[in-house]
Amino acid sequence: MPNDDALAFFESLPLFQGMPVDHLALLAHTATSRMHQTGELIVSQDAMVKGLYLLASGRVKLYKILPDGKEQTVYIFNPGEPFCLCSAFRGERFPANAEAMEPSRVYVIPGQALEDAARSDPSLFFNMLMILSRRLKEAMERIESLSTRDISRRVALYLSGHPGIEEGRLFLPMTHRELAKMLGATPEALSRAFRKLAEAGLLRLDGREVTILDAAGLERE
Amino acid sequence: MPNDDALAFFESLPLFQGMPVDHLALLAHTATSRMHQTGELIVSQDAMVKGLYLLASGRVKLYKILPDGKEQTVYIFNPGEPFCLCSAFRGERFPANAEAMEPSRVYVIPGQALEDAARSDPSLFFNMLMILSRRLKEAMERIESLSTRDISRRVALYLSGHPGIEEGRLFLPMTHRELAKMLGATPEALSRAFRKLAEAGLLRLDGREVTILDAAGLERE
Repeated sequence: MPNDDALAFFESLPLFQGMPVDHLALLAHTATSRMHQTGELIVSQDAMVKGLYLLASGRVKLYKILPDGKEQTVYIFNPGEPFCLCSAFRGERFPANAEAMEPSRVYVIPGQALEDAARSDPSLFFNMLMILSRRLKEAMERIESLSTRDISRRVALYLSGHPGIEEGRLFLPMTHRELAKMLGATPEALSRAFRKLAEAGLLRLDGREVTILDAAGLERE
Repeated sequence: MPNDDALAFFESLPLFQGMPVDHLALLAHTATSRMHQTGELIVSQDAMVKGLYLLASGRVKLYKILPDGKEQTVYIFNPGEPFCLCSAFRGERFPANAEAMEPSRVYVIPGQALEDAARSDPSLFFNMLMILSRRLKEAMERIESLSTRDISRRVALYLSGHPGIEEGRLFLPMTHRELAKMLGATPEALSRAFRKLAEAGLLRLDGREVTILDAAGLERE
């Protein structure tokens, strides 16, 4: 029963908080679901999109191809996160590529069904606004980070206030290579930056596990 | 009658399209308005904000202060544009500085009044979503631009598809110095980039007036 799965998944999402379950069931009924393999393109840059994508499992990266052919990772989505929010309602060209980084299950809700649901349950609009606002703030932080020439400063900005930090520890949600791309640096420059921050006593790095030793120092970096 | 002025201004905004005029009048009644002088800070980075700001006249720049003390311009708002959208509903720290670039009249609608209005007129939520979506797309373009090392490529990205282009001409909405800041370049590097694009026959520059001679070539740049 794919729709039961969809409903259970939808009920777990902050996006649908406050929506009556019968309305949510109607919405789940309109959704389609697909499994995407590692490396598979889910949405390509400039594709016409009219729908909301919801990642149920796996990981999806959003990236742009620069004119020199290099990839610039814009965002990495984890399970429970919606994507294509900015193209959900209008038939619009999607501004980037979305690709599965590992086997990923993705639900798609058609734009019109989403809009109808939101017009009867404005809390859905409200929740979408909250998510878009957070994304816009994060994008502004990325702009700040990329405007900084110093790579160790970029790393410090990335780590400071990262939502994944628990008790001073962060398991990096991506490989070092991915992180380097995301921060607009070469893998070598990223290694040097981590070494510099470690030598300054601000953090300790063990594979993908980062232990923050001096959060205040990191923020000042 | 400041509220009549507010109502007339609000009625002209795409943000409030579809809202009945009596509802809009109630909302206008909750708004406050202030004139800000050139260089005056309207909202400072990390200030607690709970309200929507609407620029009625003048120009406002949104910028971040980088750790080395330099400014990074994130956005320039023109009359009719809302700002602080991403902090309008929640009492949240504003992620940047908003400063008047010229004498600017700004209306502020308290967050709670805005939320109440939107819950009875979901079109307001919808309009806000559209605006936030566009801003997020623009922010992604900025991320792409800043990831590019080549300054003439940044200029080409900035100009390609700029909404202010009319019949192949764009009057730059800011000084060269401001544009350089926005593109993360020195004024000298920006001049060189313009010269390079002009020598390649892609554009002609006369003060702040840019004539696009080869739009396709500019996009490929």
